[in-house]
Amino acid sequence: MSVQRNYDREFVRTFFTSPTAVQGEDDSAKMIRRAAQLRGIQAPDVWVPDNEDATAPSMREEGVQNIIDVVAEHGADFPGEIHPRVVWHRESPTTRYSGFQQMLEIADPENGAVDNIDGFVIPEVGDIDDWKKADECFQIIEAEHGLEEGSLSMSVIVESGEAEIALNRIRDEMGKPSNTLERMFLLVDGEVDYTKDMRAMTPTGELPPWPELRHNTSRGASAAGLIAVDGPYDNIRDVEGYRERMQDNRAKGMTGIWSLTPTQVEVANTAPLPPKTGTWLLDVDGEDVELTPEGDSQVYDGDDVSLTETDDGYTLVVAGDDHHLDEDELRETLLDLTSYVPSMDDIVESMEEFEAAKEAGKGAIAMTQSATVAIDGVEVSLEKDRMWDEATYQAAQTPITLFQDVYRNRPDQHAELEEMYGADVVARATDVGN
Amino acid sequence: MSVQRNYDREFVRTFFTSPTAVQGEDDSAKMIRRAAQLRGIQAPDVWVPDNEDATAPSMREEGVQNIIDVVAEHGADFPGEIHPRVVWHRESPTTRYSGFQQMLEIADPENGAVDNIDGFVIPEVGDIDDWKKADECFQIIEAEHGLEEGSLSMSVIVESGEAEIALNRIRDEMGKPSNTLERMFLLVDGEVDYTKDMRAMTPTGELPPWPELRHNTSRGASAAGLIAVDGPYDNIRDVEGYRERMQDNRAKGMTGIWSLTPTQVEVANTAPLPPKTGTWLLDVDGEDVELTPEGDSQVYDGDDVSLTETDDGYTLVVAGDDHHLDEDELRETLLDLTSYVPSMDDIVESMEEFEAAKEAGKGAIAMTQSATVAIDGVEVSLEKDRMWDEATYQAAQTPITLFQDVYRNRPDQHAELEEMYGADVVARATDVGN
Amino acid sequence: MSVQRNYDREFVRTFFTSPTAVQGEDDSAKMIRRAAQLRGIQAPDVWVPDNEDATAPSMREEGVQNIIDVVAEHGADFPGEIHPRVVWHRESPTTRYSGFQQMLEIADPENGAVDNIDGFVIPEVGDIDDWKKADECFQIIEAEHGLEEGSLSMSVIVESGEAEIALNRIRDEMGKPSNTLERMFLLVDGEVDYTKDMRAMTPTGELPPWPELRHNTSRGASAAGLIAVDGPYDNIRDVEGYRERMQDNRAKGMTGIWSLTPTQVEVANTAPLPPKTGTWLLDVDGEDVELTPEGDSQVYDGDDVSLTETDDGYTLVVAGDDHHLDEDELRETLLDLTSYVPSMDDIVESMEEFEAAKEAGKGAIAMTQSATVAIDGVEVSLEKDRMWDEATYQAAQTPITLFQDVYRNRPDQHAELEEMYGADVVARATDVGN
Repeated sequence: MSVQRNYDREFVRTFFTSPTAVQGEDDSAKMIRRAAQLRGIQAPDVWVPDNEDATAPSMREEGVQNIIDVVAEHGADFPGEIHPRVVWHRESPTTRYSGFQQMLEIADPENGAVDNIDGFVIPEVGDIDDWKKADECFQIIEAEHGLEEGSLSMSVIVESGEAEIALNRIRDEMGKPSNTLERMFLLVDGEVDYTKDMRAMTPTGELPPWPELRHNTSRGASAAGLIAVDGPYDNIRDVEGYRERMQDNRAKGMTGIWSLTPTQVEVANTAPLPPKTGTWLLDVDGEDVELTPEGDSQVYDGDDVSLTETDDGYTLVVAGDDHHLDEDELRETLLDLTSYVPSMDDIVESMEEFEAAKEAGKGAIAMTQSATVAIDGVEVSLEKDRMWDEATYQAAQTPITLFQDVYRNRPDQHAELEEMYGADVVARATDVGN
Repeated sequence: MSVQRNYDREFVRTFFTSPTAVQGEDDSAKMIRRAAQLRGIQAPDVWVPDNEDATAPSMREEGVQNIIDVVAEHGADFPGEIHPRVVWHRESPTTRYSGFQQMLEIADPENGAVDNIDGFVIPEVGDIDDWKKADECFQIIEAEHGLEEGSLSMSVIVESGEAEIALNRIRDEMGKPSNTLERMFLLVDGEVDYTKDMRAMTPTGELPPWPELRHNTSRGASAAGLIAVDGPYDNIRDVEGYRERMQDNRAKGMTGIWSLTPTQVEVANTAPLPPKTGTWLLDVDGEDVELTPEGDSQVYDGDDVSLTETDDGYTLVVAGDDHHLDEDELRETLLDLTSYVPSMDDIVESMEEFEAAKEAGKGAIAMTQSATVAIDGVEVSLEKDRMWDEATYQAAQTPITLFQDVYRNRPDQHAELEEMYGADVVARATDVGN
Repeated sequence: MSVQRNYDREFVRTFFTSPTAVQGEDDSAKMIRRAAQLRGIQAPDVWVPDNEDATAPSMREEGVQNIIDVVAEHGADFPGEIHPRVVWHRESPTTRYSGFQQMLEIADPENGAVDNIDGFVIPEVGDIDDWKKADECFQIIEAEHGLEEGSLSMSVIVESGEAEIALNRIRDEMGKPSNTLERMFLLVDGEVDYTKDMRAMTPTGELPPWPELRHNTSRGASAAGLIAVDGPYDNIRDVEGYRERMQDNRAKGMTGIWSLTPTQVEVANTAPLPPKTGTWLLDVDGEDVELTPEGDSQVYDGDDVSLTETDDGYTLVVAGDDHHLDEDELRETLLDLTSYVPSMDDIVESMEEFEAAKEAGKGAIAMTQSATVAIDGVEVSLEKDRMWDEATYQAAQTPITLFQDVYRNRPDQHAELEEMYGADVVARATDVGN
């Protein structure tokens, strides 16, 4: 039981923008021509030929023609969805009319591209009435071109305070007789322009983290059956920072992120999937440190924790504090300090176990995770129990549902997924929970 | 001057759920029969015989009968309020109809339980129109059974994005002619299902902290004269973590929390009350460390701060940084680094002083807190002044108002409160500010 | 293209309150008489003779007369705007009527003050309907006194949950035929009373940080073309803490803050302006440490990072972790660990460069910032490139727009600004971007 979604894809990991027309190149469509030929893990779930900010204003007319040409030629074979971004602005009727004309042209069936256009991305939207103006353009375009009503989806970039407020209202407005907002697909944050619109400043010019905006976008998506996508991560060399941002986003329910390069696409296509192997973590003064598997043990090899056996027990030193503990206390303490990041295989196995238990009439079962943790050569066996009931099961299911959605919609990634996890895990992961 | 509350209780510290029917026991009502007999500090402010998630679906019919039996027998003597949770789901009319039937049966006066039922808890609500559907069930039940309109209160579990959005709208909707939402009582967060509904993921499967949800719940409660309650804290062994969560909640204005065991009830009944004795804190590199009272001094005995007398003053080393200070500078620095957690007695005394000053025509007075702080044997006398005006007074009053609410509503805890604070402090605390 | 503002000032840095009548002084108007004569960097952008919380209830009638006398005498020469605060409360018609009478009297043209009154500040507002009641008072006062409709602006203190919710609704309500909410000017947080209204508690009685409230206030201001101002910072000795709060606020788009003393005014008038000189920062274990310029180098002289040359490269030790790096890796690592806080001059120069490039038909250019970083005597030359496009340009413009707004509205601060930056930088900064 959940909010009804109007689209095939339940998740979108990657939103990849490409300039539609670049000046000074032999082929001004070079960037989108290359992007249209991405396949597999480097190909995004949603590809956005970007006829707005990524393309110089003087090139946008040529950009429309480039989109048409490239999508007509390569669109049918592209493995993801295709959603061009056109111009729009809540404060400018002129810009809105330009955006309308761009969409009208790209969607003209005579131009041969529309069959492979899944929708359009509308930037710089304002309050909900502005979203309705964009929707009205879609209605006219579909009617003028004889396309099925609602066949073109609408995604928006949230980059103003009023658009953020509108996130609360989508659910209420969808389905009213004079709009067709059921065509809504993605809610994408645009932090650069949002920062400008909010008139925010940081000393170094770095973007503020905007946790509330991301929460509100994710919640708006959840309430209306849409998909939330975070904005661009400018420092494209900083892969670690990009991963951390995505982990923070996923804890907010925002699974997708903007990608600026095929490398970012690859990282972002992979990051939300469960890892191949599980990892034990030790909490060292508030930070999680990965333990290193060696033989049957999980070894801590840092300097901030030490453990020695004494005559009557153990001395555990964490961040300069000494704890004198007997064996049971030591085990309790380490249970509290450790946690486990389950692998894809672990999650599937736990779900299978819970399903079998449910079949047998049990409502809740204990799942056990064991490890031998070694610190300074002293080994301690731990068993972590966790009660699984229906709610735990369903919450654990999210990464699996994501995996299944990817598997169903992206056959071009099957080989890479099997290489990553092994065919057996992939087979069980596609099967479990259905 | 504040928003009008429709209920006796202004605060609810504890929301304790118990399974209504457990399979494989001689007495399937064992858990609620035991819970109904809790008294004193282990008895919750609100007890929730849980006929939803805590009880297997196949046992819920029996659960309804168990609730009736146990409440009919023990309800009159139970010291807290009793609010059974029934099934409900914003996406399922079938589930909603089951919930209606469960409430209709439990509230039937012929079954002898309704006199001791204070209300019902409705889980999995959606947008405000869904809340109104639940309210409609209450209206029908009260009319069918000849109960006074509004006599059954309604509490909801906020565990979806649309319910979070609805928190903004309660105040506007209450009091409209075709609903009776004035019966609203508790707004309870349900983070497990909320996490599922938001499709959020964390590496270890731990719940995200959801600070915005808790803020919005607390704010919605404040705006509508209701009471905000945080969701379950699963790691029932981790008392320290439970306390930290409650401290974080209280800083958001969310005083109540879910409890899963009588031990959690006891911890959560006690945590929001001011401490018996005050404590001095020293800020060591961003973390507050408690000083140890020894004789007349407050002693720091850690390794991260050192203080030595030199020829011309003092050297204070904090987190590896040396500061050479004269006596006044040292005092200033320590004033900035220390803070004081007042005891119940301190708060009452300050309020009494301010009331006397107000009586004498003064609008603001300075309250002084003195201590001798000792670091490495060097003693420094500190005096912390704080200006109290009407606003400070009123803000300081919150824990006292809470205490008085507890004292008024929970005679069964009087003995334990007097043991905790002494009879004199209890007497003055119940009297001050009235 | 941005939301239309109805006021001259686009930014307000400082909101300075003074008691209108103090008991026991020869001249009860002493405090506001002194405040009215502040000039230059110690004079606030908005001065608030405070006839509410800062003034004892018994003195408020005298306070009204004092406001009239002082503003009639000094108002014309005061360099900032003047917005008295009157009494108001969402729960009390009596208090609201008193506030109305206070405003009616202060705004009476026969009293000679109204020409220099820019508006009124309304505290303790509730939901949007309560804001409309206040607006109705303004309408009546303007009509009764023959003042131009909308000539008195209205600012509110957000200090209740319902007022926070109303922040979402201002934009929708402004411009409806039966209100004149276009007169709205400032949205000011009042965390002391908000904390009381939310019934929040912290162990030491310190105010909670309320990040969500500040976000929502800033967003509400952004959506409705208003200005967001944070509440009072009580610890007036703690200048560093005040600065940190303002930096945090600016990252939320909240540029203004309450000031309680002329010293706080000076700090808060200066803090949002770009620095005179740029600064290099090194990220040391998550904290930004300022490097010290010495000759052509930026020197790190702390103990937490060390760098030594080895036979085959370098050893960089950060927070106890050793990294063995060749020259390129070292440079990459330091590029990641360093950041640069640009000076006013840097920002102006970058904007000028981008404008020239745009003129020449380029949409994006790389801006380079170079430095030689020295750690333990080892020097490394770094070049940081950042791509500037239209969006970067516009986001970077915020501090310059603020500067220009200050320069235009506060001629009394010209001398101090020129002393701070030099006349050349001031001239270019006032010119760029127009």
